[in-house]
Amino acid sequence: MQAVGLITEYNPLHNGHRYHLRQAQQLTNADCVIVVMSGDWLQRGEPAILDKWTRAKLALENGADLVIELPVFFTTQPAHLFARGGIELLSALDCTSVVFGAEHPELDFQRLATAIAARQGSFTHYNATFATQFNAALQAATGVTLTAANDMLSFCYYAANQTLAHPMQLLPIKRRQADHATTTIAADSRYASGTAVRQAALAQDWAALKPVVPADTFTALTTQRLQRWSDFWPFLQYQLLTVDVARSGQYDQMAEGLEYRMQAMAQHATTFDDFIHQVKSKRYTYTRLQRVATAALLQLTQAEVQKAQAHNYLRVLGFTPKGQAYLHQVKKQLPLPLYTKINQDLRQHALNLDYRAGRVYQLINGQSQDLYRQPWRLPVTIG
Amino acid sequence: MQAVGLITEYNPLHNGHRYHLRQAQQLTNADCVIVVMSGDWLQRGEPAILDKWTRAKLALENGADLVIELPVFFTTQPAHLFARGGIELLSALDCTSVVFGAEHPELDFQRLATAIAARQGSFTHYNATFATQFNAALQAATGVTLTAANDMLSFCYYAANQTLAHPMQLLPIKRRQADHATTTIAADSRYASGTAVRQAALAQDWAALKPVVPADTFTALTTQRLQRWSDFWPFLQYQLLTVDVARSGQYDQMAEGLEYRMQAMAQHATTFDDFIHQVKSKRYTYTRLQRVATAALLQLTQAEVQKAQAHNYLRVLGFTPKGQAYLHQVKKQLPLPLYTKINQDLRQHALNLDYRAGRVYQLINGQSQDLYRQPWRLPVTIG
Repeated sequence: MQAVGLITEYNPLHNGHRYHLRQAQQLTNADCVIVVMSGDWLQRGEPAILDKWTRAKLALENGADLVIELPVFFTTQPAHLFARGGIELLSALDCTSVVFGAEHPELDFQRLATAIAARQGSFTHYNATFATQFNAALQAATGVTLTAANDMLSFCYYAANQTLAHPMQLLPIKRRQADHATTTIAADSRYASGTAVRQAALAQDWAALKPVVPADTFTALTTQRLQRWSDFWPFLQYQLLTVDVARSGQYDQMAEGLEYRMQAMAQHATTFDDFIHQVKSKRYTYTRLQRVATAALLQLTQAEVQKAQAHNYLRVLGFTPKGQAYLHQVKKQLPLPLYTKINQDLRQHALNLDYRAGRVYQLINGQSQDLYRQPWRLPVTIG
Repeated sequence: MQAVGLITEYNPLHNGHRYHLRQAQQLTNADCVIVVMSGDWLQRGEPAILDKWTRAKLALENGADLVIELPVFFTTQPAHLFARGGIELLSALDCTSVVFGAEHPELDFQRLATAIAARQGSFTHYNATFATQFNAALQAATGVTLTAANDMLSFCYYAANQTLAHPMQLLPIKRRQADHATTTIAADSRYASGTAVRQAALAQDWAALKPVVPADTFTALTTQRLQRWSDFWPFLQYQLLTVDVARSGQYDQMAEGLEYRMQAMAQHATTFDDFIHQVKSKRYTYTRLQRVATAALLQLTQAEVQKAQAHNYLRVLGFTPKGQAYLHQVKKQLPLPLYTKINQDLRQHALNLDYRAGRVYQLINGQSQDLYRQPWRLPVTIG
């Protein structure tokens, strides 16, 4: 059996994602479609609208055969680290190829990544201004600048893939969906951006939502407790009001002095949006500030995140019979630990950061995120 | 002018307290009645039902001339430290005498305190089992054991007073109120215990409440947001779920290993009462556990509490013209700093623990506890 891999967030899974899952299989003729998916906290530093179990099930219902959770210490990170974590997991699972969406799949990402491969060491280091640094280097070496989010991420997949002893085949494809930044759902369209889908769901605009998401996603969005940053704002504010500033300075991605600014703004801000808006300055992007806010909420320190990144693992959220067969095939030569169920030891050690991230997420929807959970076992139901 | 001092919590101020205030003045014929009062967090490790400003105003409306806040690093402590903090403030204000309620005012507290004065060093050290230790020593030296809460506190006032270069005159009096432990309000009684008053207020049993509290207290209880531990439970749970156990082990009064137990119980507990009940063992009293929970909620470490205890201060919450005249009289020779208004420097340094404690309290009632607040200036309104 051969496998194709995808690196995803599915926040939530919409028709564009479903199309992408099918394309990945058809393009590669793979026997198994593996999805690495962010858990409850996402790359843009925000909670997922639906929890990881709901989203994993949706993935299995719409074309995935095996869903692996990307740990929180890779999901809430800049693009190069997010990409590194995902590529590492797909490679560990012996995927032959990786398919991903890009705004400009025609770009020669391989050449671009190779051109600055030697210089990557200087800015793959944990840093907020990675995009700026790497674009400056890329511009100098190749004359190309990447500005679109998925082009940038594609580049990072190539860069991460190049460092592998046995690189996988990378296949960027054009995303079948509205522009990533479009926040409205066009009439008569079956495709909308994730932002537009989330806005429609939170506004309970079911008529607009229904045409652009699979039926299972529609059901989940209409029946589950949808989560967003404003749900966690009371906890974040409380945390920033009580934590010692020397301690908050150790939170992941907290730049020098930002902890003082955050603690000062937490005194008076009344909502999460208000807070982020007050903290915002030219120096930091909203995404960066949201990631720092996530680290503060989860009390993730830079030290523990960096330590954890050196100990990646395969946490199984679900599989179809095909996914199970594939897992069985590769299981004996896996270079990373495989976890299918949490226990006391994993909760306190190897999986402790994911457990903490899930336990905080659970404060709002009340659904256990780790304890007592077992991987989904789904029949193939691709329509 | 001569002053008499009281050490209080007024949670909330009821007829027994009002009687006590009058008795204190009449007994000593003092020109000024000074009240040292706990702020928003109390000796039993719980939030006050009304905030410190409301309670300070009630004190001024019912016989006090000057209200000073006992800092949080003395209020949420075992009796001997609570007493030490209060006595230190009254002595700093040059009080001639201190009046306090005891279950057995006829006891010779002076003799008892003197009898074990030499041994106090061995158990005045920060310790949960202070009561047990000191009673064992007291029993051995004098044959007396103190079991009633206010007898014990009275003893602590004597012990703290003895260490002063110029001890004040101490006057224990019989409390004019129902038994401290009684939780119901007797028909036709003008007196009830604090517990009974709080229960009636929280149950909105206004008919039972009205006869046992002054009119101003009744108004406050019927119009303000009453606070209790359950209001803060979501924050405490969140905190215990995210904090590193090595960090929580540093919280004030956290005994060895208790941090693990608290973090484990926080996983599943659904209410504060449920949580404390699950954590409870023979080794710890409920009061002790509530104090530790308060320290965890406020992220108060043992190190910062002990450091702060060595730097007590006089924070003025309000005064009458008499109180103001008295303050003017003693102001030049005060051995402790006098603070009437918070500023940026005080908020971040000298008053930082009280500021933090108040800011967390404020999360529920939305009333600023420090910023923009000025001491009350009340006319004398003793009825």
